[in-house]
Amino acid sequence: SKIPGFRALDTETVKDYLAERPDLGGHVGPSDSKDAWTVREVGDGNINFVYIVEGPSGALVLKQGLPYIRIAHDWPLTQERARFEAEALREEARHCPEHVPELYHYDGALCLLVMQYLPPPHLVLRPALTAGRSFPKLPCHIAHFMATTLFNTSLLALDSKAWRELVGRFENVDICRLTEQVIFTDPYYSAPVNRHTSPQLDDLAHAFQHDVEAKAAITALKAKFLQQRQALLHGDLHTGSLMVTEDTTYVIDAEFAFAGPIAFDVGKMVANLLIAFFAGAGLQTPEAPRTRQRQWLLQATVEMWASFVAEFKELWTASVKGGKPGDLCPSALFGEEAPAGPASLQAVQEDFFQGLLPDVLGFAGAVIIRRILGIAHVVDYENIQDADSRAAAERQSLQFARRLLVETSSFGGSVEAVVKAAAACD
Amino acid sequence: SKIPGFRALDTETVKDYLAERPDLGGHVGPSDSKDAWTVREVGDGNINFVYIVEGPSGALVLKQGLPYIRIAHDWPLTQERARFEAEALREEARHCPEHVPELYHYDGALCLLVMQYLPPPHLVLRPALTAGRSFPKLPCHIAHFMATTLFNTSLLALDSKAWRELVGRFENVDICRLTEQVIFTDPYYSAPVNRHTSPQLDDLAHAFQHDVEAKAAITALKAKFLQQRQALLHGDLHTGSLMVTEDTTYVIDAEFAFAGPIAFDVGKMVANLLIAFFAGAGLQTPEAPRTRQRQWLLQATVEMWASFVAEFKELWTASVKGGKPGDLCPSALFGEEAPAGPASLQAVQEDFFQGLLPDVLGFAGAVIIRRILGIAHVVDYENIQDADSRAAAERQSLQFARRLLVETSSFGGSVEAVVKAAAACD
Ligand SMILES: Nc1ncnc2c1ncn2[C@@H]1O[C@H](COP(=O)(O)OP(=O)(O)O)[C@@H](O)[C@H]1O
Ligand SMILES: Nc1ncnc2c1ncn2[C@@H]1O[C@H](COP(=O)(O)OP(=O)(O)O)[C@@H](O)[C@H]1O
Ligand SMILES: [Mg+2]
Ligand SMILES: [Mg+2]
Ligand SMILES: [Mg+2]
Ligand SMILES: [Mg+2]
Ligand SMILES: [Mg+2]
Repeated sequence: SKIPGFRALDTETVKDYLAERPDLGGHVGPSDSKDAWTVREVGDGNINFVYIVEGPSGALVLKQGLPYIRIAHDWPLTQERARFEAEALREEARHCPEHVPELYHYDGALCLLVMQYLPPPHLVLRPALTAGRSFPKLPCHIAHFMATTLFNTSLLALDSKAWRELVGRFENVDICRLTEQVIFTDPYYSAPVNRHTSPQLDDLAHAFQHDVEAKAAITALKAKFLQQRQALLHGDLHTGSLMVTEDTTYVIDAEFAFAGPIAFDVGKMVANLLIAFFAGAGLQTPEAPRTRQRQWLLQATVEMWASFVAEFKELWTASVKGGKPGDLCPSALFGEEAPAGPASLQAVQEDFFQGLLPDVLGFAGAVIIRRILGIAHVVDYENIQDADSRAAAERQSLQFARRLLVETSSFGGSVEAVVKAAAACD
Repeated sequence: SKIPGFRALDTETVKDYLAERPDLGGHVGPSDSKDAWTVREVGDGNINFVYIVEGPSGALVLKQGLPYIRIAHDWPLTQERARFEAEALREEARHCPEHVPELYHYDGALCLLVMQYLPPPHLVLRPALTAGRSFPKLPCHIAHFMATTLFNTSLLALDSKAWRELVGRFENVDICRLTEQVIFTDPYYSAPVNRHTSPQLDDLAHAFQHDVEAKAAITALKAKFLQQRQALLHGDLHTGSLMVTEDTTYVIDAEFAFAGPIAFDVGKMVANLLIAFFAGAGLQTPEAPRTRQRQWLLQATVEMWASFVAEFKELWTASVKGGKPGDLCPSALFGEEAPAGPASLQAVQEDFFQGLLPDVLGFAGAVIIRRILGIAHVVDYENIQDADSRAAAERQSLQFARRLLVETSSFGGSVEAVVKAAAACD
């Protein structure tokens, strides 16, 4: 998948690249100030290289993807992902510019993006949560991002021709295959790349491999992940893809974007808030309890879901009332003037959200499980130094995740019930 | 959508076209026998022109699509449909050659296909059913066609890369938009193209337009039609797309092929058998009762579903046992050597068919409704000369179809229960 003309940049050649493009370099400084620019490589993800370039006029970020995974040079990965990231950033910015870094430039041959720098005090959310922080505006911001991007790229907003065109532009095949493997397959058998806290969790890892119900449930979710094209998803919407301050929230790292089930984006977010909650039990100490933060994490989960539903529904109702809905709920059947139009619309909406929540919870369960039994672990648990304490938090998480995955209906279709049950694990 | 180099053939130029291509004309006779060839245009469909060409050595069929619908010159239709038909015939023949006419030739510029002629006593099934005939092998043949084509183009047989490639090749956008309109939208509002037996059915046509539950149900099915990519469907699998004898069954007219929900193909077949059953009540006379045929139609519905499930499951189990399943049920999780592999596979299969049947019945209901309230009617009902008798059969059908669409669960997940309820309508 190596692209002709490709070359990997480094902290020196990044400067040259930008200085040769005054429209870009201008964000940093005039090209004759180049020697005064500083470049730092800050990529903390598993996959790409991210350079922060600062100069007299300002700063920007340059992200480049190599033809393999950063942490595993023997794991090739399509460089098309840079194109998907650029196209997804553009599409997201169309619907929710307030939570997306501005894209300045995309270079297909070099597989790189140049974008707005999110300066301190912006932090990546995951380590900030692991450090015990809370961000009161987060649930509302994420809900807004999800509602606007998911609604506006669905058949509720688009006619079927435009929607099919959009779906076709995001055939992110190799990246999706990665997800199919690491979330929906590996954790349920003894995949060589798996790891877990051992020997403490050996019993549970073994149990999942023998778990008929879990395997049936994960297969139904895998089918939805592959087959259900509802909207353009971010595709990797977890706390490591968010940069936040007290007042702002940005969604970065859109390279996993594809057309899939809405519940997958929402479920990943729910999973990652719950992961922070469960990990908190192992991260807190008698001197530094996390009672407040952990309460906030559960409350944030409820608030995020409620705001998402409210806002998505509002957009939906407004589009029908405004006379410009997508093809799924045409005005002729659901408009104010249509016979029983508003009542029919309400019925469709109730069915929609009632059907969505079980999938959200199922995907959430799957995501928690894969972070503990699969290849890619998270700092939330990894920062619990004592292996026994870590295993205890992980065990609790796994048992809870299995309920989400397999006994979804036991929560009676309520996120409140889910967080109550999570709180009761302590 | 007019294609450069396109020209419409007629009964004369069809001969020239074939005579210039000896590999094709050879099916009919040597080119110097051309003057002795006969050409008949037999297209009875709504859309295309079909020529039967016969000569000293044999016969063939040439099907050409114009850039508009045959019965409505002001309704443009993409000529790409010929390509979809050719590609679908090839794909179907790969999995089920015994029920597909052989494709001899496809010409993209002229939007035409040349294929195997199905000679007398082959009949189009729909008018044969309307004439009171039965075809004992039909249910089994159709079940075989559906099981083999649907299984082998699904993620149960293919890896996700090959499957996505297949799905991408069948982006039959304009044809799907037609279906979205005529099945999933028009019948539920006063669309100008709608018609029904009037005034007898005015009350029911009005009731469907005000029917909150029916509109909610049809929207959920429309979402599946558009969003759920499970397998390559025939897309227009009704009794007018089948040519049969006592012993043979051929599936023709694959121009609606697209990647969609498996239940749509199966549901269309179920609907059309039930349509023949309900219409039979109006077609029979005291002198020529249809008791036997109508019993057979219900029994055929049950048999078709049962054989379909049995064969689809057999292919599925065999692919896992054989070590070459698609990506949805990998051997590592479901193989004979995997922990709880066979039990897990059985659980997935049970979930699959239990989830499939309600969609089959829902689509079946939708298809019956559209044939009575929408634009395109069928000879089954149209042949009932007396308007009151026709309306009576249509009323019964509509009421039953609404149960299929809205009260799907009242049948307790059993096709036997469905046909019992249909029999009880008499
Ligand atoms: N726009 C930005 N502003 C500031 N820092 C950024 C920006 N984009 C990325 N980063 C930093 O780079 C890291 C990796 O970026 P990310 O897009 O997540 O790459 P990867 O695809 O490798 O995971 C982020 O976690 C963050 O620390
Ligand atoms: N292979 C064939 N052999 C014999 N008759 C055929 C064949 N294909 C089509 N026909 C005849 O032509 C009619 C129209 O063909 P069809 O493919 O259904 O066209 P349309 O797309 O216009 O509905 C069929 O109903 C049948 O009578
Ligand atoms: Mg990242
Ligand atoms: Mg990334
Ligand atoms: Mg036809
Ligand atoms: Mg054949
Ligand atoms: Mg046709």
